[in-house]
Amino acid sequence: MREISPLQKERLNYQPKLAGALANGINSVKLSLGEATSAVADMEDIKNLFPNVFGKPIAKFASAGADLSTEKKNVGVILSGGQAPGGHNVIAGLYDALKTANKENKLYGFLGGPSGIVDGEYMELTDEIMNKYRNTGGFDIIGSGRTKLETEDQFKKALEVCKSLNIGAIVIIGGDDSNTNACLLAEWMAANNTGINVIGCPKTIDGDLKNDQIEISFGFDTATKTYAELIGNIQRDANSAKKYWHFIKLMGRSASHVCLEVALQTQPNITLIGEEVEAKKQSLEEIVSYMANVIAERGNRGKNFGIALIPEGLIEFIPEMKVMIAGLNDLMAHLENDATYQESDQIEKYEIITSKLDAASAKLFNSLPAAIKAQLLMDRDPHGNVQVSKIETEKLLIEMIAQRLKEMKAQGLYNGKFADQAHFFGYEGRCAMPSNFDADYCYSLGYNAFALIQSGLTGYLSSIKNTTKPASEWVAGGVPLTMMMNMERRHGAMKPVIKKALVELDGPVFRALETNREKWAQNDCYIFPGAVQYFGPSSVCDVTTITLQLEQEKSLVNV
Amino acid sequence: MREISPLQKERLNYQPKLAGALANGINSVKLSLGEATSAVADMEDIKNLFPNVFGKPIAKFASAGADLSTEKKNVGVILSGGQAPGGHNVIAGLYDALKTANKENKLYGFLGGPSGIVDGEYMELTDEIMNKYRNTGGFDIIGSGRTKLETEDQFKKALEVCKSLNIGAIVIIGGDDSNTNACLLAEWMAANNTGINVIGCPKTIDGDLKNDQIEISFGFDTATKTYAELIGNIQRDANSAKKYWHFIKLMGRSASHVCLEVALQTQPNITLIGEEVEAKKQSLEEIVSYMANVIAERGNRGKNFGIALIPEGLIEFIPEMKVMIAGLNDLMAHLENDATYQESDQIEKYEIITSKLDAASAKLFNSLPAAIKAQLLMDRDPHGNVQVSKIETEKLLIEMIAQRLKEMKAQGLYNGKFADQAHFFGYEGRCAMPSNFDADYCYSLGYNAFALIQSGLTGYLSSIKNTTKPASEWVAGGVPLTMMMNMERRHGAMKPVIKKALVELDGPVFRALETNREKWAQNDCYIFPGAVQYFGPSSVCDVTTITLQLEQEKSLVNV
Repeated sequence: MREISPLQKERLNYQPKLAGALANGINSVKLSLGEATSAVADMEDIKNLFPNVFGKPIAKFASAGADLSTEKKNVGVILSGGQAPGGHNVIAGLYDALKTANKENKLYGFLGGPSGIVDGEYMELTDEIMNKYRNTGGFDIIGSGRTKLETEDQFKKALEVCKSLNIGAIVIIGGDDSNTNACLLAEWMAANNTGINVIGCPKTIDGDLKNDQIEISFGFDTATKTYAELIGNIQRDANSAKKYWHFIKLMGRSASHVCLEVALQTQPNITLIGEEVEAKKQSLEEIVSYMANVIAERGNRGKNFGIALIPEGLIEFIPEMKVMIAGLNDLMAHLENDATYQESDQIEKYEIITSKLDAASAKLFNSLPAAIKAQLLMDRDPHGNVQVSKIETEKLLIEMIAQRLKEMKAQGLYNGKFADQAHFFGYEGRCAMPSNFDADYCYSLGYNAFALIQSGLTGYLSSIKNTTKPASEWVAGGVPLTMMMNMERRHGAMKPVIKKALVELDGPVFRALETNREKWAQNDCYIFPGAVQYFGPSSVCDVTTITLQLEQEKSLVNV
Repeated sequence: MREISPLQKERLNYQPKLAGALANGINSVKLSLGEATSAVADMEDIKNLFPNVFGKPIAKFASAGADLSTEKKNVGVILSGGQAPGGHNVIAGLYDALKTANKENKLYGFLGGPSGIVDGEYMELTDEIMNKYRNTGGFDIIGSGRTKLETEDQFKKALEVCKSLNIGAIVIIGGDDSNTNACLLAEWMAANNTGINVIGCPKTIDGDLKNDQIEISFGFDTATKTYAELIGNIQRDANSAKKYWHFIKLMGRSASHVCLEVALQTQPNITLIGEEVEAKKQSLEEIVSYMANVIAERGNRGKNFGIALIPEGLIEFIPEMKVMIAGLNDLMAHLENDATYQESDQIEKYEIITSKLDAASAKLFNSLPAAIKAQLLMDRDPHGNVQVSKIETEKLLIEMIAQRLKEMKAQGLYNGKFADQAHFFGYEGRCAMPSNFDADYCYSLGYNAFALIQSGLTGYLSSIKNTTKPASEWVAGGVPLTMMMNMERRHGAMKPVIKKALVELDGPVFRALETNREKWAQNDCYIFPGAVQYFGPSSVCDVTTITLQLEQEKSLVNV
């Protein structure tokens, strides 16, 4: 039988493109530094928390010279958090730069995420290992994990491990939280004069780690293309069979970038965007009404099919749901120890709960389908809180819409048929083979991370800009992590965090959806993106997301 | 915004390859006929039922001559049943052959499936329309439907419609049932001297329409590759995060070819095959034990993750489930009108039911999780029967396995963690853009269908053989539909039907799974096929399924 697939075999030999400034090799890179930087907000707090790494200048590389350090340097690399396509290429870029600079340099991969550096679990990466993972999806080369690096004890242990391996720099590949922690580590290493630098790389399929300096987080391109492939296929099925409404939930809890990008790629009939729901203070009732009306209007014209995209985090964007869930969390903490409640049957439990919730929350709770009520009370995390991620939002909407359509039918407002299919896509895209864009972008990010290291910088995020242009025009450099930070309340205390990028309702990306939404609802403007291609015409293989194009080109033309 | 995707744009210009004998054009095709044929079984019955189309010789084409009729001929085409990638290319091949033969020829597409020819709903296909659908997925060019053509009344109406359009031949693109009906229509048209010929084309992603004459049904290649892409991605995710068991149900109720092919492409830890379950008379209990043991053994070695593939039709292959469902169907017919039952609560209902089922079925019913019991009683079709397709088999297994693992833990037999994710893939692949194989194969099937028409043949299935070789070596011809038939009981009466191909447990394909199953269970031999490719190296873009390679080459070498 096969050892690897035919496509894997070919992709192992793909040579990713490097950003222009890096293309002549790590020994022909020249550093230039800009002005001192600040923070996105709460400058004084951030400055006080990060006295050693705050306010550094933006770094930019050119291929004109050769002024980076060539001293021998061992580096440790960590994959942190959820998988995103291209992680292996960040490591490959880092590895190739490091070995090109000095073949005595060693790259250690810490195993199973950030815990690896604390526990001293690592492996040395070699050609033999690296060459099995080039341009592949997944984080399986060294594994990933969700341990947060934030305590003095962890930092001390990490330092011991680094000393034992003669490691002079650590590269952390992660999302906003992991990079916040990378900055804490950088600060600690600097404050303690360890000589160990820390560089971050922007990873997340959610697309919410971006700002003026970081155009896109890696993995977003491949993941959204993979989801768009599936949704295009389902649209074609719906449009052929003409008998189902497909409700498709897409991974991404704290922002709806994935949903928005996929909507622009596929043009479905309904797209919900969490940030819009929150900004317009939409109620569940309003969302159900909006969707039922689109379905009814289509159904009344004989179109008993369609596609609705739903962001995974929807529930948490609905203001009244947030209030109700907070109320439930408070309430359940008491009721867990209440004998009367515990001995009650389901119906009685609901009565007790609604008698104790505020009136609006009680009304909302009562309006929910039985299965969802049960889920809210049963699936609780170790702290006793409702597990919002376990709520099957797509099925909640389907049940409520079906009920609404029944009422509309009774009122003579609807004469169609409603049959549904529910889908949830997430795991299908997080470990897809990176697109050419992600393969190139990630390789450049990793290569560039080593350039930052050899520039002696710490507390920086590897940055590759101008990414809607060909790789030769990409701009390589680094951004101080503190520049992207502000203070936010987390678990009751104010913490420095990298500001998450939410969908901007006045930005060109959301506007592209808004402008077309009505047309897409009633007409069938479905686009069928098909599978991610690696070898074909550049128009098919090398174009990145519509989101990025709109953000960079500030125009709808040519998208 | 986009009108079509970049990949669609490129694929519209792809020129599909034709089988060797057809490659010089429809006007350079020479027919040769073989020996008279019989039926797979029940020869006398089949002969009596199809006196006009039975026993015809196998047809084979060569490109050596030009002896097909060139008389003007209008043709009608019908898409029947569920979508399969490549349907549009069958129509494109038919269209191109027909227009090349005589540009006055017309191709009519009957709309919404077989009902179109009965109700006279049709459209004439033109260059402008056809060119928008070349090499695309879906059946949306004319739509599909599930109406069965089988009554005298339908045939008469169809004849009237054909006469009004001067249609001399009908091409039906469908699965085993649709082609059985195509044969009934061919017989009727011949018996009534209408001069209208009927030709079938073998379609189904399920892969169960194949035999000595038909190597593969179209769509199986693309659909399985699409599912394999997703499963490979999920495997990579599982192997990176190392915390979930993914239970993946795959479309395909009456045979497990899809599951088997996808398993060979991806090498998951567990693969269930319905035909094996039936042959070995496995109980639900045994299946749960097998799976729980694999999970426990991995868990005990620290591997709390894995992938299990489950065929959609599993339930119907488990002998005791079949008996229990038949029992429930009988029982519920009575209980629907039983006041005591109707007024009982859920628990009482279960008691009534188990008191009336046979002991084995009652025991099985009691062993099922609550949600599944409720599903069995609630979701009933218009005839009052249990809707087996609505049973969430993957969740049934997950619940029962979780319970079993809990017991094993209590007994000290298991010390791992079990966290699950459930998936169901079907709609994601049925309308994918056809792979190069399906694009070429379908185009050849359609082109060839016209060659059969111009040869004056009726009651034939379009046949393209030698499909593991390059298209230039493909062999074009036709097979009498009656040759593939036998008599089977349907709804209480014996009917002539095309024999469905089930997974052969002593065949090379199943054996490839069997040989490797234990190794794949405990080791991580995951293969990551990646997305379907259209433009790259031939090893990636043009290779068809492992099933077909094993069946044709009768060897495991080079797969």
